[in-house]
Amino acid sequence: MPTPPFPRPEDAENAFYEALEKGDLEAMMAIWADDEDVVCIHPDGQRLCGHAQIRHGWQSLFASAPRLTVRIGERVAWLGGMLAVHSLQETFFAEGDPEPRGPVLVTNVFIRGSDGWRLLSHHASPGAEEGNGDTDGDAQPRVLH
Amino acid sequence: MPTPPFPRPEDAENAFYEALEKGDLEAMMAIWADDEDVVCIHPDGQRLCGHAQIRHGWQSLFASAPRLTVRIGERVAWLGGMLAVHSLQETFFAEGDPEPRGPVLVTNVFIRGSDGWRLLSHHASPGAEEGNGDTDGDAQPRVLH
Repeated sequence: MPTPPFPRPEDAENAFYEALEKGDLEAMMAIWADDEDVVCIHPDGQRLCGHAQIRHGWQSLFASAPRLTVRIGERVAWLGGMLAVHSLQETFFAEGDPEPRGPVLVTNVFIRGSDGWRLLSHHASPGAEEGNGDTDGDAQPRVLH
Repeated sequence: MPTPPFPRPEDAENAFYEALEKGDLEAMMAIWADDEDVVCIHPDGQRLCGHAQIRHGWQSLFASAPRLTVRIGERVAWLGGMLAVHSLQETFFAEGDPEPRGPVLVTNVFIRGSDGWRLLSHHASPGAEEGNGDTDGDAQPRVLH
């Protein structure tokens, strides 16, 4: 498991999905920026603001959800000097179930601190149809600065 | 109607909602960045990429939806040198119907070009419950650079 701070936004994103797959609450919370306005929107339409709400949300989710693996696809990445934004699709696979679940549409926002990148906002919502399954997690972000 | 380019991200956002309320397709499309990777996610879970798909999406929506007014609330704004991100809630009011529709949870991403700010990504999804209705559209964004 990579540990924060992260040298690139994609390192923070990879750690986010690793924590999600492991159901590791402490690793998940360590990825978030030290910013009172952090925002996390889950696919059920809950909009959680601040670390306390976000922690409680992941705690509930990890307690109730089956063990999941996540495939990331359709990623578009924009990289600024202080902010980075990734738009992507998540597809989930539950243990023992070969049928994929999703897609979930995601906008992840990262912020650069003095020592690296952390997660500022995670917006996830149900997608209307299955994506084409291409994984382009290695695609290079567009550098804007 | 303000015209692009916009001196501040919030000017682009205000123009976006003005175009949405008017059902003005040309004004809506003029707000988007000249970037092949622009992304627009509507609350029905459609993820539209590129100007052609995005135009077609708004054209269909404007042709079918009733005339709407939009109230913006719960806005959190992050401002970097090249990218700006706003997280907010939309509440809609249809003509002749006093009942609000929503909330819709939104992450708007703006990019700064040589001459001003335009919209790069709009992610809208159904919210689980009505927000408290506070409008803080005049709140100052956090400046990160």
